[in-house]
Amino acid sequence: MKERILDLKQQLKQHNIQGMIISNPVNIKYLTSIDAEGTLLVNSSENIFLTDARYIEGVNNLLTIDDEIVVYDVKALSETDYESFFPEPDNVGFEENYVVYSEYKKMLQKYKVNLVETEGIIEKQRIIKDNQEIENISKACKITDDCFEYILKYIQIGMTEKEIAEEMRDFMIKAGADDLSFDTIVASGKNSSIPHAVPTDKKIEGNETLLIDFGCKVNGYCSDCTRTIYIGSAPEEFKENYKFVLSEQETLLKSLRDGVNLKTEISYRVYNYQKNNYELFHSFGHGVGLDIHEAPTISHKNDFILKKNMVITDEPGVYFPGKYGIRIEDTVLVGGIKCERLTKSEKELIELKL
Amino acid sequence: MKERILDLKQQLKQHNIQGMIISNPVNIKYLTSIDAEGTLLVNSSENIFLTDARYIEGVNNLLTIDDEIVVYDVKALSETDYESFFPEPDNVGFEENYVVYSEYKKMLQKYKVNLVETEGIIEKQRIIKDNQEIENISKACKITDDCFEYILKYIQIGMTEKEIAEEMRDFMIKAGADDLSFDTIVASGKNSSIPHAVPTDKKIEGNETLLIDFGCKVNGYCSDCTRTIYIGSAPEEFKENYKFVLSEQETLLKSLRDGVNLKTEISYRVYNYQKNNYELFHSFGHGVGLDIHEAPTISHKNDFILKKNMVITDEPGVYFPGKYGIRIEDTVLVGGIKCERLTKSEKELIELKL
Repeated sequence: MKERILDLKQQLKQHNIQGMIISNPVNIKYLTSIDAEGTLLVNSSENIFLTDARYIEGVNNLLTIDDEIVVYDVKALSETDYESFFPEPDNVGFEENYVVYSEYKKMLQKYKVNLVETEGIIEKQRIIKDNQEIENISKACKITDDCFEYILKYIQIGMTEKEIAEEMRDFMIKAGADDLSFDTIVASGKNSSIPHAVPTDKKIEGNETLLIDFGCKVNGYCSDCTRTIYIGSAPEEFKENYKFVLSEQETLLKSLRDGVNLKTEISYRVYNYQKNNYELFHSFGHGVGLDIHEAPTISHKNDFILKKNMVITDEPGVYFPGKYGIRIEDTVLVGGIKCERLTKSEKELIELKL
Repeated sequence: MKERILDLKQQLKQHNIQGMIISNPVNIKYLTSIDAEGTLLVNSSENIFLTDARYIEGVNNLLTIDDEIVVYDVKALSETDYESFFPEPDNVGFEENYVVYSEYKKMLQKYKVNLVETEGIIEKQRIIKDNQEIENISKACKITDDCFEYILKYIQIGMTEKEIAEEMRDFMIKAGADDLSFDTIVASGKNSSIPHAVPTDKKIEGNETLLIDFGCKVNGYCSDCTRTIYIGSAPEEFKENYKFVLSEQETLLKSLRDGVNLKTEISYRVYNYQKNNYELFHSFGHGVGLDIHEAPTISHKNDFILKKNMVITDEPGVYFPGKYGIRIEDTVLVGGIKCERLTKSEKELIELKL
């Protein structure tokens, strides 16, 4: 049996839970490598994957006897089959942040068990990455870096934000990404003051900010990177603000390491924002893996100890509504004495003279 | 107040429901035109949109006094505010197929009302399209048709399925689509025998089937189209099967009209499949609108009367596992005496000699 499923069973046992119904495809992929529609059932003696005719052949080709996963076609299952999956009057876990209410009710009827909320158990396992996972994220980060280098030469006055976003997508897919991690943000001028801007038909002009937030997936694993550049010669005020964000970003690189409590560490950063009269619009980062936003949230509200081999983002930002915004973000690997950057694109202010 | 919200209130009244919490952004967009993260609350006297600082300005710019929608920042709301939104000991509807279990529990705590399942009420309103909606879908269908014409000239031996899918995406976005309706299917050779194939790195060879299922969005409204062509000279057996699918597709165009019961009408088609020894792998189509798959399902299991101005797909298919599949699909508008095709691409068998 795969180690990740064994770990899960151990966790469930400690919580007095006899089984779990896993519906979130990202968690199923993490535990089993299966990338197909279906439901994974885990109990003390068995692992069962319920799927349909479209996927059975593919799943059986992927699994070996060591996986110890039995695959069933849902169409062939009777009422009694469902009741037999969890034979004792069990506490059975389910993912309350993934399962919609109507599906929850169906589960109660089908499995006839006591459903208990277990969101977070598998998500917690996913926080620390193994070598294979770090390699996938690093590959995605390399494509992201190459894309940034490429797009700097591509951008011209008069191009729209949407056009630039599309060109970046093309580049990353052609470079071997499975997909994007999320819809690329290309925000110019005052659009950059919106932290979650969507690319518009606005054309790139001279003398304005350009904020690009982007990432891609390799074998399902995400990268995440933001750079803010200036089109033309940046005014002094912009340079000052840029310097502040860059200094915050580099301070975090050193302070976020194995054993550090986020609550304490990020409180210093919040204090520094206040001291310098900057408003805080969002947290300083988040975990990255099979999902683009995973645990942990890098926030002073999170009483959480960082550990080696967690992969997170380091992304301070400052925003001046209606004017412009500056964010600098790297995907980083938490190490023993500091963070290692996995995205390595230039961070010194780039003034693009077009 | 917008007519769609008035209709919803009427529906709720008939079901003895005093209000509704609308969480699905597609339903919110349908009712209000608002395209932002948030929750719409409807009760007998008011309409309230709860959102956050990122969206308030944009939403207020969109709404006019005639909309009669009050916008609140969730950050400014107290416990008492939530309890006051539904003042009577009300039955309040929620979308049980959209809301996850943990959110359902939070709703119970926050609003302190009797939550009742109302999935389907807004979805039912959405089935019949108005002129503006039909125009948007038609525009998306036109881009889809242009894309098919373009890609026929682009395809070469040795290109991968993924490359063709990416090129189609580029074409549709550059032609003005907001987005794709779904990930394009490009399936060649035996991959075409999987109804929901994902484009692979398989290269296009000579003498094989090529199935393309694609669509895009205009102002949020979807198009959906499938064509199956043959690379080289199609064998007789393939031509025979193609003829069967095309004949089924054209029969449906005539039979699916205002007043027809799907259960009766589609039963004839199922019978014809059986008579000709074809296996049925999926339904004959689905509604299309703001979602790519909406009500109604075009199936003999659906006891449902078609009405004028519904937009649906007409997509019979036959599949020979491990060999090839053939599907021909148009997006069509239900009319008084027949269906009008909104996708108009060539349906006679195309044998692409490369």
